[in-house]
Amino acid sequence: MSEVLELGKKAKKASVKLANISTEIKNRALRAMADALITNTKEIIEINKKDLEEGKKRNFTKALIDRLLLNEARIEDMAKGLREVAFLKDPVGEIIKGWKLPNELEILQVRVPLGVIGIIYEARPNVTVDAAGLCVKSGNAVILRGGSVAINSNLILTNILADAGVKEGLPENSIQSVLTTDRAAVTELMKMHDYVDVLIPRGGASLIQSVIENSTVPVIKTGLGNCHIYVDKLANLSMAEKIVINAKCQRPGVCNAAETLLVHKDVAKIFLPKILKELQERNVEVFGCPVTCSVYPGVNKATEEDWKTEYLDLKMAVKVMESLDEAILHIQKYGTNHSEAIVTEDYSAAKRFTEEVDAAAVYVNASTRFTDGGEYGLGAEVGISTQKLHARGPMGLQALTSTKYVVYGEGQVRS
Amino acid sequence: MSEVLELGKKAKKASVKLANISTEIKNRALRAMADALITNTKEIIEINKKDLEEGKKRNFTKALIDRLLLNEARIEDMAKGLREVAFLKDPVGEIIKGWKLPNELEILQVRVPLGVIGIIYEARPNVTVDAAGLCVKSGNAVILRGGSVAINSNLILTNILADAGVKEGLPENSIQSVLTTDRAAVTELMKMHDYVDVLIPRGGASLIQSVIENSTVPVIKTGLGNCHIYVDKLANLSMAEKIVINAKCQRPGVCNAAETLLVHKDVAKIFLPKILKELQERNVEVFGCPVTCSVYPGVNKATEEDWKTEYLDLKMAVKVMESLDEAILHIQKYGTNHSEAIVTEDYSAAKRFTEEVDAAAVYVNASTRFTDGGEYGLGAEVGISTQKLHARGPMGLQALTSTKYVVYGEGQVRS
Repeated sequence: MSEVLELGKKAKKASVKLANISTEIKNRALRAMADALITNTKEIIEINKKDLEEGKKRNFTKALIDRLLLNEARIEDMAKGLREVAFLKDPVGEIIKGWKLPNELEILQVRVPLGVIGIIYEARPNVTVDAAGLCVKSGNAVILRGGSVAINSNLILTNILADAGVKEGLPENSIQSVLTTDRAAVTELMKMHDYVDVLIPRGGASLIQSVIENSTVPVIKTGLGNCHIYVDKLANLSMAEKIVINAKCQRPGVCNAAETLLVHKDVAKIFLPKILKELQERNVEVFGCPVTCSVYPGVNKATEEDWKTEYLDLKMAVKVMESLDEAILHIQKYGTNHSEAIVTEDYSAAKRFTEEVDAAAVYVNASTRFTDGGEYGLGAEVGISTQKLHARGPMGLQALTSTKYVVYGEGQVRS
Repeated sequence: MSEVLELGKKAKKASVKLANISTEIKNRALRAMADALITNTKEIIEINKKDLEEGKKRNFTKALIDRLLLNEARIEDMAKGLREVAFLKDPVGEIIKGWKLPNELEILQVRVPLGVIGIIYEARPNVTVDAAGLCVKSGNAVILRGGSVAINSNLILTNILADAGVKEGLPENSIQSVLTTDRAAVTELMKMHDYVDVLIPRGGASLIQSVIENSTVPVIKTGLGNCHIYVDKLANLSMAEKIVINAKCQRPGVCNAAETLLVHKDVAKIFLPKILKELQERNVEVFGCPVTCSVYPGVNKATEEDWKTEYLDLKMAVKVMESLDEAILHIQKYGTNHSEAIVTEDYSAAKRFTEEVDAAAVYVNASTRFTDGGEYGLGAEVGISTQKLHARGPMGLQALTSTKYVVYGEGQVRS
């Protein structure tokens, strides 16, 4: 039996027990996991150094090395995250609805865990801890597969978490990591629909695309965000300015940051010079349509590629629109159904935009940066789903659950 | 551009308009579609004959030919189905929940259509009409791909429905069928995740397996049911008898019929002779474990294969259990997570069974045959999901929808 198949079988077995473990035990396990991280801080940092060296050998960028790095503060943060998850309401066991049929059958729809969750991610060891915590709380067994460079960090984190959990009563193998860095292991994981109930890829576009294309396990697509701000002709322009700057600059490397600014032609002449100047002052490189280029110096000419690009950087595409219709069509064509915003004082324009733009979150007069489980008040965030099946938008613990009908009878048969 | 890719692009375009069409127009279209079927009854029957001939040429069984057959009564039934869907509540536009954040942002979670739904099914022309009706009502564009033998029937039905719908204001290409019977078309449809939001295979195990294994479009797995009845040691045995007979014999060819009977050893000697006699009287062929074989004559020896088999026929596997634990483990191992029942008067056994058996529907003292959208009062049924993602158990119109967050602000930005 291959390693991954064995992990799958063990996880399935663990998931059966985990589904019916008390909230009390799960919370105790989460707190023990947090404590264990703190206790083992030195060892974690020591082992993490191996991965950092490997990352340097592979010429990782500074940003990537930074994502890989574990230090005291970060380990404390991860532990804090686990403790916060312990405070969240347990989604499992909720009776969502219930009713009686004319034949007196009593039907309850009950919330249950998904079962076994596979998480495929890049070289970010903190995901190991986040994902394990969320899966434990929602009663799911988890199989973790992080980027190969982080293998040593991931394995020690998994061992620490799993041991601490088992001591508090979690079933063996509730939390497992794939040991090998062999790519074939990922391919195998993606085909194990008999043992894995859902795969969640967390990372860049190419990782997610590869999982979608190769997985026979149901997938939740997360986090690709080519987000737009459309400044309508009846926009409050000073409000528009604040929203654009916030959506682009407050944290450019995340999926809910804005990538393209669309401006109605009637306000282009007033609004563009101001906003382009502000962007320039914040070191944002702008790629503009011909009109944008003519209005303001120092704007690069945008190509078709720019409308499609999720820069995740201090770069922004800017295009002047003939009408609201053109803006909606542009977003339909180039958007990734993540977060889209209109700035307008026009009631009908706002209504049309919210109805016709197809995205996980549509904003009127607010920054796209709000698309986030924490901001929405959902507690911990599993990710932001950009697909329509199962969950859409910021996913809280509930997104890691399914339902079951429980039907109580007194001998009823169907006629 | 290939035919299927063109269908996908057209469907996507239609779906954008369909998402915001009024309930009024959708209902009018559904009623017009029903009328058009009735008006064109003769022509449908005439064209269906071609498919029947082809079916006979291919040596279809009587049962398959019967599924393929359209006559006046069946066309009336299909029309009636469409009219009933017109009466169902429109799921689109429902505000599922809404709340205000501390920063005064107002968040609404709104129900929206999935977008484009692909249905892959076998040679049953009635699915063409059912599926088209449900998709129209839920605001989704649909691409239909029925079994190749039914191609002529499916195409005329699709044309009649699409024309009638467009006349009442449905967008062009809301309802489309794949024209070619070429298998490559199905393969292509399964890879079109840019244009198709979900694929629902309806049919036998091999069809569903093939879609799961090859699709990059999210899939909802439906209808595989290896269902069990477990008769506990504290069962009311006359109730158990009625439930077993109903679950096995009332309609053996459907997914919620029982396939295996598990009997606690303490009641085996009393219960087995009675139930086996009753099954025999109803022409049910029984495949039993050694104990079962020794208790009653005329029982075939069961093999490992029998525990796995969804007979969909007047056949039943029977096995004596040492304990409730063994029954739960047996169901975990061989069940398909569809519908499972326990017959017992023991409170704790009932509680354990409902908690530990992982299935879309778990019954205490009732027949598995109740797992059905109509019986549950959900209105029309899209199918019975046996996966955990998105929808589980009988799926009503709501299973064909997703959600969207609409967020109203007054210039809020993230700090």
